Amino acid sequence: MEGQSKGSFNVMEGSEGKGREFVVEKSASSIVGTCDLVLRILAFLLTLVAAVVIGTDKQTAIVPIKLVDSMPTLYVPVAAKWHYLSAFVYYVGANAIACAYAILSLLLTLANRRKGKGTMETLITVLDTVMVALLFSGNGAAMAVGLLGLQGNSHVHWNKVCNEFGKFCDQVAASLFISLLGSIAFLLLLIVPPVLRLKQTT
Amino acid sequence: MEGQSKGSFNVMEGSEGKGREFVVEKSASSIVGTCDLVLRILAFLLTLVAAVVIGTDKQTAIVPIKLVDSMPTLYVPVAAKWHYLSAFVYYVGANAIACAYAILSLLLTLANRRKGKGTMETLITVLDTVMVALLFSGNGAAMAVGLLGLQGNSHVHWNKVCNEFGKFCDQVAASLFISLLGSIAFLLLLIVPPVLRLKQTT
Repeated sequence: MEGQSKGSFNVMEGSEGKGREFVVEKSASSIVGTCDLVLRILAFLLTLVAAVVIGTDKQTAIVPIKLVDSMPTLYVPVAAKWHYLSAFVYYVGANAIACAYAILSLLLTLANRRKGKGTMETLITVLDTVMVALLFSGNGAAMAVGLLGLQGNSHVHWNKVCNEFGKFCDQVAASLFISLLGSIAFLLLLIVPPVLRLKQTT
Repeated sequence: MEGQSKGSFNVMEGSEGKGREFVVEKSASSIVGTCDLVLRILAFLLTLVAAVVIGTDKQTAIVPIKLVDSMPTLYVPVAAKWHYLSAFVYYVGANAIACAYAILSLLLTLANRRKGKGTMETLITVLDTVMVALLFSGNGAAMAVGLLGLQGNSHVHWNKVCNEFGKFCDQVAASLFISLLGSIAFLLLLIVPPVLRLKQTT
């Protein structure tokens, strides 16, 4: 770092040792900027698809129900909808908020591209961090409930439901996978800039 | 920002407009450094307590069970343990990993305090971000299952269990609250430095 000049960064040690002068050439910040834009577009698309896939998820199955032992088994149509489980409601809400924020932050980033570091960039970093927390908590909640639906739990006598609602569960799983990719895109928005900047100074 | 000098930052615009010279005095970085250390200690303590509170959670209750309609109701002792639910196992694991990482990163931060920005600081920022994702997904999973235990869900015929295991559920709720505070400490580790730096330049 001391007195080196590599890649597109020039790092010069001040003669009096008071500070450092960073002359950051355009190419360095443009790589970070391009990565940022690509990740925001990906985050927007993935969270949108994840929310739509689970939001349109609905299945009606014929389920055997026995009201009294002496009566024959009844076969009744039962519907499975995503908003029956509060974890899925939270998950859809988290994806919808993250999706709306991704497109808004994309526009704000494009509008502030030439202005450099400032209040807007800091605000976007703060909100990116909040989105990571929101999305991962939503994914965790939906995955926990999805796993219960798939496997059930004998200790608390919660029976699995995915044997009856296979298509519904497959769609939940697909949405979860896509949402996880969207969450990783938000995670990379926080990880990539410091890593790229470090790579270009060493 | 142009030609201003406020607080402990001096921001000077380069005469040729090629870059900016930031002379960051010690007090500015020391505030960020102190905040970082306090938040890491808090994150360590809170995730440790959260993991211990749920890790020691166990309750045995006498539950009425009816095997056959013609037989009288049997009262059998049933135990509730945190590791019966995979969401709680993931939650404890997430808190344990975050706790171990908090103390390790605290030691690394103290050891690298005088070296300034470099590979170690970037690595710590990346891992802080991963910890936020890990902790919030664990919290989301545990909260979703905790809520099911508290309220049940009539659509999937999952009965609430907290009416039988009140003490167990209270301890889960306490652990969740503490873990959420620990997760916020990790979140602030990512949010505070850019906000403080921005505040000191404006």
